[in-house]
Amino acid sequence: MSKLTDLPKRILIGRALRSDKLGETLLPKRLALPVFASDPLSSVAYAPGEVLLVLSIAGVSAYHFSPWIAVAVVVLMFTVVASYRQNVHAYPSGGGDYEVATTNLGPRAGLTVASALLVDYVLTVAVSVASGIENLGSAVPFFVTHKVLGAIGMIVLLMLMNLRGVRESGTIFAIPTYAFVFGVFCMIAWGVLKIATGHDMHAPTAGFTIHAESSGIGGFALIFLLLRAFSSGCAALTGVEAISNGVPAFRKPKSKNAATTLAAMGLLAVTMFCGIIALAINTKVRMAENPATDLLDHGRPVGSGFTQDPVIAQVAEAVFGHNSIPFVFLAAVTALVLFLAANTAYNGFPVLGSILAQDRYLPRQLHTRGDRLAFSNGIVLLAGFACVLVYIYGADSTRLIQLYIVGVFVSFTLSQTGMVRHWNRLLRIETDPAKRRHMVRSRAINSFGAFLTGLVLVIVLLTKFTHGAWVAVLGMCVFYATMTAIRRHYTRVSDEIAAEEEPGDDYVRPSRVHSIVLVSKLHKPTLRALSYAKLVRSDTLEALSVNVDPDDTRALQADWQRRGIDVPLKVLDSPYREITRPIIDYVKGLRRNSPRDVVAVYIPEYVVGRWYEHLLHNQSALRLKGRLLFTPGVMVTSVPYQLESSELARVRARRRADWNAPGSIRRGPVHHHQPREKAREH
Amino acid sequence: MSKLTDLPKRILIGRALRSDKLGETLLPKRLALPVFASDPLSSVAYAPGEVLLVLSIAGVSAYHFSPWIAVAVVVLMFTVVASYRQNVHAYPSGGGDYEVATTNLGPRAGLTVASALLVDYVLTVAVSVASGIENLGSAVPFFVTHKVLGAIGMIVLLMLMNLRGVRESGTIFAIPTYAFVFGVFCMIAWGVLKIATGHDMHAPTAGFTIHAESSGIGGFALIFLLLRAFSSGCAALTGVEAISNGVPAFRKPKSKNAATTLAAMGLLAVTMFCGIIALAINTKVRMAENPATDLLDHGRPVGSGFTQDPVIAQVAEAVFGHNSIPFVFLAAVTALVLFLAANTAYNGFPVLGSILAQDRYLPRQLHTRGDRLAFSNGIVLLAGFACVLVYIYGADSTRLIQLYIVGVFVSFTLSQTGMVRHWNRLLRIETDPAKRRHMVRSRAINSFGAFLTGLVLVIVLLTKFTHGAWVAVLGMCVFYATMTAIRRHYTRVSDEIAAEEEPGDDYVRPSRVHSIVLVSKLHKPTLRALSYAKLVRSDTLEALSVNVDPDDTRALQADWQRRGIDVPLKVLDSPYREITRPIIDYVKGLRRNSPRDVVAVYIPEYVVGRWYEHLLHNQSALRLKGRLLFTPGVMVTSVPYQLESSELARVRARRRADWNAPGSIRRGPVHHHQPREKAREH
Repeated sequence: MSKLTDLPKRILIGRALRSDKLGETLLPKRLALPVFASDPLSSVAYAPGEVLLVLSIAGVSAYHFSPWIAVAVVVLMFTVVASYRQNVHAYPSGGGDYEVATTNLGPRAGLTVASALLVDYVLTVAVSVASGIENLGSAVPFFVTHKVLGAIGMIVLLMLMNLRGVRESGTIFAIPTYAFVFGVFCMIAWGVLKIATGHDMHAPTAGFTIHAESSGIGGFALIFLLLRAFSSGCAALTGVEAISNGVPAFRKPKSKNAATTLAAMGLLAVTMFCGIIALAINTKVRMAENPATDLLDHGRPVGSGFTQDPVIAQVAEAVFGHNSIPFVFLAAVTALVLFLAANTAYNGFPVLGSILAQDRYLPRQLHTRGDRLAFSNGIVLLAGFACVLVYIYGADSTRLIQLYIVGVFVSFTLSQTGMVRHWNRLLRIETDPAKRRHMVRSRAINSFGAFLTGLVLVIVLLTKFTHGAWVAVLGMCVFYATMTAIRRHYTRVSDEIAAEEEPGDDYVRPSRVHSIVLVSKLHKPTLRALSYAKLVRSDTLEALSVNVDPDDTRALQADWQRRGIDVPLKVLDSPYREITRPIIDYVKGLRRNSPRDVVAVYIPEYVVGRWYEHLLHNQSALRLKGRLLFTPGVMVTSVPYQLESSELARVRARRRADWNAPGSIRRGPVHHHQPREKAREH
Repeated sequence: MSKLTDLPKRILIGRALRSDKLGETLLPKRLALPVFASDPLSSVAYAPGEVLLVLSIAGVSAYHFSPWIAVAVVVLMFTVVASYRQNVHAYPSGGGDYEVATTNLGPRAGLTVASALLVDYVLTVAVSVASGIENLGSAVPFFVTHKVLGAIGMIVLLMLMNLRGVRESGTIFAIPTYAFVFGVFCMIAWGVLKIATGHDMHAPTAGFTIHAESSGIGGFALIFLLLRAFSSGCAALTGVEAISNGVPAFRKPKSKNAATTLAAMGLLAVTMFCGIIALAINTKVRMAENPATDLLDHGRPVGSGFTQDPVIAQVAEAVFGHNSIPFVFLAAVTALVLFLAANTAYNGFPVLGSILAQDRYLPRQLHTRGDRLAFSNGIVLLAGFACVLVYIYGADSTRLIQLYIVGVFVSFTLSQTGMVRHWNRLLRIETDPAKRRHMVRSRAINSFGAFLTGLVLVIVLLTKFTHGAWVAVLGMCVFYATMTAIRRHYTRVSDEIAAEEEPGDDYVRPSRVHSIVLVSKLHKPTLRALSYAKLVRSDTLEALSVNVDPDDTRALQADWQRRGIDVPLKVLDSPYREITRPIIDYVKGLRRNSPRDVVAVYIPEYVVGRWYEHLLHNQSALRLKGRLLFTPGVMVTSVPYQLESSELARVRARRRADWNAPGSIRRGPVHHHQPREKAREH
């Protein structure tokens, strides 16, 4: 795998650089936009379709509500963008929603946001990949018949790419994102031109009618349906918060540039969203939740053989013609930008994990920035969860979207509420009237943002809970409970091992060291262990061997004498050819006889280079070590002997050190990253 | 799981004893027979059916050859039993075929036998369990429709039981085995009585005719078919060699008792085999390879809904009546004894593994007698292979039997050939005419055994290779190649680390020790590591910390000063919050400056009791240790700190120590086990 991907990567992006050489590669706005916006922009590929799909429950006549829903989404988008522009100015260190919530609303709110974001990353991968495969399917029918396979294959491919550690450049994001934006705008422009010149365009589903599940509904039921359609449309907002995590990656003035980029992203997203909905209505796109039964061709259901293409593909077909070059181009870049959106989750998941690890909500070793192992674990976990979801929901983006958005709006709401608190706190101490005015304005924006996103959260929960949102809520609860348990564990251990100010009465200062070198044969590793053990001066020193085979033991004793080794050799008997038990018993006996002594056990250890060699060496030593450590007053020293093959592993380790965590371009250079305590003082 | 199985186990067999308390529980013949014979006796449950099945290819008329095939199997059985009686006398230490072949024919022959036996163990599990489920299915139709599920469930159940380590008693084997023998003999006696009194018995398939695939064949084709039928009948011989491994488990005179038991087993097996075939012919049992198409009911194929029950079940139905109490009883004990036969493979596989490990063909750590970990690995591997086979072949015992027997006859042939060499060698030095006469007789028996089993091996390979035996041969080759590679690896490493007689020119005796204690916080584990490191007197001692978070580092430094610790504290910088790299770089720097010094790194390590706690602690330390060991001139000391939860693990370890390897009853008490070198001198 690694060799295969190596060459194209080298050609594309040159040799991977360590991230500390990345110091100067800050992002200009024109590159920052595609780097951060692939997620929110790509969601216009599925959000308009979801709106139509929900409306179709009440029949085609309900489609005339779609402009109003589009307006609601636009208002919401502007509100969220305006709110996050405040975040970007207030937290230029790139503190995301987790930090804003933790700082201003306390650790529980922070942990809730974190759980929501973790669930959201999983769903971003699942939804984006599923939708990408569906868009690909509009041009390549193979992906229609092999939807699940294609989606899981893509998730695994992204996983492998991220495990390998592809060094990113802004250009890699820029090309597909701008191509996608360009394609959609061309489609809209061409469509408008055709309409203006009196052309009549027909989507492939234009001739169908819809069997309304509940036609002629009104009153509360209709309102509920409209709210549900609006909830689905809100999928267009996912990923907006990404820029607020990435402020340090911008060129100076960072906050201002980030805010501008945010505004540009919002404007692009709503334009494309509205354009696609308008064209869909004009070209008479028909979407149904269950196309096989509810889409009617001359009054008869189209049946399960029919593929309902995504709305963007249907519009493109109406505008450009089926399988025309621009149609295929748009399908390709749509799929590409959706996969890119999935990729951002691969970058974000482990980074959030490392922040949570710093706060002890996740295993401590994950906190290293861009640590490869932590990164790998996070990526594999993310891919695994996403695959399970894709498999369960048959890679159907419509069913997956029911789970989506809950997490997004939980974190929107808590983050905006936190910002209100933030301004309140600052207003208590600020006296400069100009600054106060500014803060009051920001507070008003964030308050409205908190109110509106909170309202949407309630709507999403009400309209989608039974349709699948409960899965997302359950996932959040599981993450929350796990992280709380881990944090509690760390706190308990920390209390247990806290040093007393004065050593207690039960503390016995150790007095002497009795050293033992474990010996099986007299070869180089043993001789090295003996010479090191002699160098470290202990009170007594002996060599210890277990008599597993009497002939071997006799040979060892003879060799020992012949070489005149000045360390006494003790041999333990072992009728069952066991090694661990006799040694443990012997060490325990030593400890019993002189409880104040410390026993130092030296174990020669082979250092090998290939994974399978680990199975062939050191296993007995490892097990023995594991058992010895349970005995108080014992320390265990590994004296390594590097076999020739260990050179391989050293080379591998060096290569690993050159590894570059994916997503570093979004996080900015390291010397701009400040400890969070300081960031809070801003 | 463990708790659930605990109570019935305790009730049945009392508290598990350690195997060293097993010294006096030697087996009397009446218990040794069932302990060793469940495998060969149980094979009469499927071998007769396989003979009929192959004959049916030439049509029902070919069934009249079945008595001749039975005679051939009987002759072969007596030959093999007579041959192994010589083995038992010559190798009273319980050296199995592997040892006989290695000692007399060299390591390659030994390794071939070992590969054959390993494959055979896997197939014993697959065939016995599949056949057991089929027999169960004759009384409980559920197991017909859920054959694969039932078989895999059974394999997993046996695996869990063996992992848990059930202490065996002869009685556990005796009851089902004797019940099975009793049941079959009752059936034969009752059947003969009914025939004698003029009753007409009809098997459920008696009314069917068979569509012969190649009817009216003659000449070479017929001979080939008869040979193939004979090959299938040879399945009755599997497991005969088991007693030759278990001589030490017998009461004195061991060899004589083992030889008598072997003879009794052979006699029982052939009587049951012939009785079942005779009754099958008399009750007109019809078996076809593809019953759905080749069994004809009034000229029409019975179709895939028809279940062809095993021959023993059909005969029982004819003799006792369908679903009568004796019929169900026989089905139950047949299934039970087949599962018991599968269980013997679970005992044998890890034991053979431990013998191979002693000869360095398998990872070294497996050589401990009854070692739990080695045992577990072997058992899981065996169950895994068996599950794969059962899944691939749809738990169809007929298809699985095509793979069987190759391994058995490879080891029969090589073992008997080895015995001929053995007698030749002894005859060269023996002068006593009485003893010589005895040896010449033994040699004649073994020569005939080698010839006949070799002939059967050729027949089996010729007639079954394309029917599936190639899979078994391939499996043997894979085992052979793997074990050769492991042995070569150990030899190469052993050469690499062999100590020179005189230290070479490149050898620099280390001169001083520089000790480093790794510190993250000043808690009890750190304080213990510091006090131990001070106790072991080295030339220089310093504490080392990595500055991951400036606030934490400042707190550590303040604490250090306040407590007045008399060890200098050095702090390394780490912009990426890495821990491993700065420490490795520092240690490498030390080594560069004074290459003759040894660096001793002390790492405080948490000892925990729950598996998930391992994920939460020590991961950074472990990784650091792994990297440090690659650097020559470094040794790494773990200073354990036992957290409260470690008590759990200690209790678990104690319980594990009381664990008793399944199969110990077959191997006999340990003080009778002699090193193999001595056994060879007998």
